[in-house]
Amino acid sequence: MARGYAIGRAVVMGAAALEVAHYRIAPEEVPAERDRLTAALQKAQDDLLQMADTLPDDAPRELGAMLNVHRLLLGDPLLAQQALALIDERHYNAEWALATQGQLLGEQFDAMEDEYLRERGGDVRQVIERVLHVLVGTSAIPDPSRVDGNDPLVVVAHDISPADMLRLRGGRFLAFVTDLGGATSHTAIVARSMGVPAVVALGHVRELVRDGDMLIVDGGTGAVIVNPSPAILKEYRQRQYAYAEERAELALLRDEPAVTLDGIGVTLHANIELPEEAELALASGAEGIGLFRSEFLFMGRRHLPGEEEQYQAYTSVLRVMAGRPVTIRTLDIGADKTLDDEATVAINPALGQRAIRYCLARPEMFATQLRAILRASAHGPVRILIPMVSHMQEVVATRQALDAARLELDARGQAYAPHIELGAMVEVPAIAIAIEPFAQALDFLSIGTNDLIQYTLAIDRGDVQVASLYDALHPAILRLLAHTINAGERAGKPVAVCGEMAGDAQLTRLLLGLGLTEFSMHPQQLLDVKREIRRAHSNALRVKVASVLNRALPVDLETLNQP
Amino acid sequence: MARGYAIGRAVVMGAAALEVAHYRIAPEEVPAERDRLTAALQKAQDDLLQMADTLPDDAPRELGAMLNVHRLLLGDPLLAQQALALIDERHYNAEWALATQGQLLGEQFDAMEDEYLRERGGDVRQVIERVLHVLVGTSAIPDPSRVDGNDPLVVVAHDISPADMLRLRGGRFLAFVTDLGGATSHTAIVARSMGVPAVVALGHVRELVRDGDMLIVDGGTGAVIVNPSPAILKEYRQRQYAYAEERAELALLRDEPAVTLDGIGVTLHANIELPEEAELALASGAEGIGLFRSEFLFMGRRHLPGEEEQYQAYTSVLRVMAGRPVTIRTLDIGADKTLDDEATVAINPALGQRAIRYCLARPEMFATQLRAILRASAHGPVRILIPMVSHMQEVVATRQALDAARLELDARGQAYAPHIELGAMVEVPAIAIAIEPFAQALDFLSIGTNDLIQYTLAIDRGDVQVASLYDALHPAILRLLAHTINAGERAGKPVAVCGEMAGDAQLTRLLLGLGLTEFSMHPQQLLDVKREIRRAHSNALRVKVASVLNRALPVDLETLNQP
Repeated sequence: MARGYAIGRAVVMGAAALEVAHYRIAPEEVPAERDRLTAALQKAQDDLLQMADTLPDDAPRELGAMLNVHRLLLGDPLLAQQALALIDERHYNAEWALATQGQLLGEQFDAMEDEYLRERGGDVRQVIERVLHVLVGTSAIPDPSRVDGNDPLVVVAHDISPADMLRLRGGRFLAFVTDLGGATSHTAIVARSMGVPAVVALGHVRELVRDGDMLIVDGGTGAVIVNPSPAILKEYRQRQYAYAEERAELALLRDEPAVTLDGIGVTLHANIELPEEAELALASGAEGIGLFRSEFLFMGRRHLPGEEEQYQAYTSVLRVMAGRPVTIRTLDIGADKTLDDEATVAINPALGQRAIRYCLARPEMFATQLRAILRASAHGPVRILIPMVSHMQEVVATRQALDAARLELDARGQAYAPHIELGAMVEVPAIAIAIEPFAQALDFLSIGTNDLIQYTLAIDRGDVQVASLYDALHPAILRLLAHTINAGERAGKPVAVCGEMAGDAQLTRLLLGLGLTEFSMHPQQLLDVKREIRRAHSNALRVKVASVLNRALPVDLETLNQP
Repeated sequence: MARGYAIGRAVVMGAAALEVAHYRIAPEEVPAERDRLTAALQKAQDDLLQMADTLPDDAPRELGAMLNVHRLLLGDPLLAQQALALIDERHYNAEWALATQGQLLGEQFDAMEDEYLRERGGDVRQVIERVLHVLVGTSAIPDPSRVDGNDPLVVVAHDISPADMLRLRGGRFLAFVTDLGGATSHTAIVARSMGVPAVVALGHVRELVRDGDMLIVDGGTGAVIVNPSPAILKEYRQRQYAYAEERAELALLRDEPAVTLDGIGVTLHANIELPEEAELALASGAEGIGLFRSEFLFMGRRHLPGEEEQYQAYTSVLRVMAGRPVTIRTLDIGADKTLDDEATVAINPALGQRAIRYCLARPEMFATQLRAILRASAHGPVRILIPMVSHMQEVVATRQALDAARLELDARGQAYAPHIELGAMVEVPAIAIAIEPFAQALDFLSIGTNDLIQYTLAIDRGDVQVASLYDALHPAILRLLAHTINAGERAGKPVAVCGEMAGDAQLTRLLLGLGLTEFSMHPQQLLDVKREIRRAHSNALRVKVASVLNRALPVDLETLNQP
């Protein structure tokens, strides 16, 4: 969801993947059908390339990279070859062949453990949709004249690609509502970047809304109200106005310091997943990058990226950040991923060979990433963050791998910074519970609250049967946060929170009360959190929070958040 | 593995499932082939029934129940129907049809999350093997005259059923070595109960050993030495003698109190999974049952057991224990199990709807079990133990379910004890970390170290890629144990350890040093642990352990275990 309100009339978009004809062609038609599919794939590639070349100046920075991912997926030989094979062997028509293979690829992504990677199944579907539109000769963009009057329009779609969202922007189109997607889908990310209200993953909204229906879209709560009463409509117009005023006020905070009323300075960093998002981070006033996820470089491709490609990506972020620290997290994927065709599917992938465990088991791949990061460190202050650490031996092995990488660069005569900070994600309960030696051995710590909560409560929040038990405010979680933050204080090492808790302004006072002075979050959340910090009395909050922690009682957020 | 040494000559057993002929029959042969399979299934049933009726007096108590499980699996209509369908539709011969369906059923068990349930795949394979022997007309038992001389014999088998193990016992047969099986397989359990050295799950031992080879079987380390040199042979004969002396000494401890040198009394309870094991618990000197797993009642069947059947099972244990406490753990299975045909397979079953979460989502099933336990409480001191608690609301909901069950029994006029203690397994990190309110709200706590380690380290120890990171001595684990034990002390509530750590005599001093005064373990381990307790200085150990805990340093087990 992207926050904000929109009020307008519905325009319902078709979904080619759900509607194309499925039929078998005659054997003599195979060559022509193959050509038709090949031409459509090429046309879609050309369209994407042209879109990338003609992006408006104010387009979100990450859109170029997303278009690239779509082009990479589209260019995947597997997609074309397998679809062509379906034409050859089963005599499917081109649309059917493509939709079948796209469905298969999409499901492979759906089955992945990592939420981020799972969302890439959505990218596959959007790419297929684009080619299907070329094949059928329809447009992915609805015609606004279908709805009478001059009311602004809300696009109601099965799914919508970031590029199409950009093309729809402006004119009468105001907001987007879709059946598919997820909080970390590219569609949701671009909507947030553009400040466009959007609600995704509604399931069957397209079946419930008709052209011309009046819609209220509340991107903050994810509510979509169809044909509201006049009283409701009036209420939401007021909320819309108040929200606009609030955003304008927040924007004024961009260059103000993040300091509490009692003078405690707080560091606010941004989480990014695409190199291009660094601009967005700067624009929101971030003092550095607290978490640069490196998985993006590894996605949508069949081979690991080389050292040079990684080096360029990391360096580009350092250039944009111009002397501000950039924290690069080493590869955070698991053995259930398709990266290297090792098809081992663990019974419990979340408790398996993921993240640093995965990297240490693949020394060549890990060494390549470490060399690329070290080389980038010649261009600005880099910090290395290793995910899912549970044993001290993983820290030792990483330092050894870093030393070996330095020797290799020395032999090549390539430059790197003399000192580079090494930190660990605190997301496995074991490291948080026995944090002291880790606080000594490392230069900084970063708490990944999402996984920390998952493991501490033994709850996979992606599992609908137990998601309701996922609770960031469980006394155990607050104790682990306090324990980690205190250990960092005593060892003189910075501790950040970079999980979702850091970006939730509702939890800012709680985190201050736990002693946190470094937050890292999505750039869009930064100013909200800064405002909370500037309104808070840090020391008073610490006293309040300590008293509930001691007794392992639930924290009363409402009382805590009263000014 | 079952501890102990055996030295003898190998007798290699065939494996019908691997060796039966696969061929297609003519359509007119179908009725005769169906009859052949049906007759073989019936014969195997009759054999099992006769074995159960003629068990020798000194047979392990649990064997009768295991034979029952085999009969239940054999009587599963699915097995016969599906095998018959393969004869009808694909014209498989009876052996092929049965082996195919058996393989399928076995794999369904293999895919289960719970180690205990997974081992039941082995039971399916043993049942199929028995029927295949009937079909082929061979014997499951090798002929000792195949190996010359009078040396004792070691059976080397692909797999061996508990019943066959019993039949082989005595005479020249000394020990068992198998390709299949696991630490919690029934084969391993019976071997432990009979005190027969056995090494299971060796993979391909049957291919590496020939009839007449001299074998040393070390059940303690799991080593099998083939054709040893005279020096090695001499060494192992000495170890064998020393071990026999040690067991004889240990047996003398049965009625001695479990008290440390400095006078701290320790409670030693037994873990059982079959009602029949209660005898074994008594025989080992257990002062009560610390963990009666109730899953056994639910296995090998297509319907949930009724209240009456559960009541009888619980009551039979109370009768044997004659006034000693019996702790019944409520159903500890997950949504990935086959119990009720809900085929939801979670991506991470260990982080899903398991144990108390599973029960609270199925109120009728849970109520039935609670009523059965309450009714049993009229016959002796019962305690109820709920697994995988993470949220206080689960304790509240269980108390409500208990109240409702009492009302129902009142309405029926059925008796139950006025007070029944309610405790929780401490196996999710969250409850251990924020234990204080749970220690207040519950009557006792029992730490399940296996799962607690799994979640705290985010390691599935069944996953070979990460099993080496599973570490019971991680400082985080020791801190959670100490924290839980101390909270219990302060609240005046007993705290036990019932996971594998409790039965490992190597860890007895460490646990005493953490303040533990209640251990629950497999009956076979009890006297070893008691001996360690009687040799230890509890208060000196507490001082030593506290100093490493404070700094979250690894504990030096060797120093700690020096007398």
